[in-house]
Amino acid sequence: MRTFPLKLVTIIADEALERKLVADIKRLGAKGYTVGKAHGEGAKGERISEWEGENLRLETIVSESVAEKILTHLASEYFPNYTIIAYLSDVAVLRGDKFV
Amino acid sequence: MRTFPLKLVTIIADEALERKLVADIKRLGAKGYTVGKAHGEGAKGERISEWEGENLRLETIVSESVAEKILTHLASEYFPNYTIIAYLSDVAVLRGDKFV
Amino acid sequence: MRTFPLKLVTIIADEALERKLVADIKRLGAKGYTVGKAHGEGAKGERISEWEGENLRLETIVSESVAEKILTHLASEYFPNYTIIAYLSDVAVLRGDKFV
Repeated sequence: MRTFPLKLVTIIADEALERKLVADIKRLGAKGYTVGKAHGEGAKGERISEWEGENLRLETIVSESVAEKILTHLASEYFPNYTIIAYLSDVAVLRGDKFV
Repeated sequence: MRTFPLKLVTIIADEALERKLVADIKRLGAKGYTVGKAHGEGAKGERISEWEGENLRLETIVSESVAEKILTHLASEYFPNYTIIAYLSDVAVLRGDKFV
Repeated sequence: MRTFPLKLVTIIADEALERKLVADIKRLGAKGYTVGKAHGEGAKGERISEWEGENLRLETIVSESVAEKILTHLASEYFPNYTIIAYLSDVAVLRGDKFV
């Protein structure tokens, strides 16, 4: 079965950021995304969500160049103002040509 | 700590497909699975769920040969009829011998 | 964009174990964690949750040495008594220096 090597970008953030994050990643080239609910603590034990909100766990499958653009954008526009976590993993995607 | 190199298969689909997907992956050799709720958009911005249903995010840890069988089955039986996303990642599994 | 290569530890367990698991992984060096709800079946088709409880899917991003400590602890303290699944994946983390 033929698969495409792509990048899975995972972002953990306050759920209040969903609309803004989705708009940003689509503008930067993401073709789709998946969001699940989560809770937890950030890397220094700090709260990720303001008040009592839940967190979101947003995933998007993109090319390496789009992944780079998304991480660069998160680092400059989100990290100074919000507690978010972002990481990449390598995935082999069925019908991966739809994602680039 | 000894771990086993295995494949994590992740499938994003309409939650209405859960029973069918679970039956199919077990028949093809999966020993277990985990399902979480999600929402989002497919690779072309298309809706994954019919009507107003939620999506599921199904994960199963399998050998490379079972992963291959699952992807082949998804490509032939699901992709023509449903909007689903499927991808593989490499994982190192504790007590991985239980999964093969 | 500079990222750090780290380990993502994923643990699937009965949700009743959340407090104990979180305390243990933090004591072993985890700086943060994310928990989502899930359901499913274990590697032999056995129930993961007692009674009718849900499962949790706990993720934590850690150094290789902390990942090793967590897996060793899970193998000795949890596997004999509980149905849990644990696996590692490689991730490239933005601002990964916060996690070690």
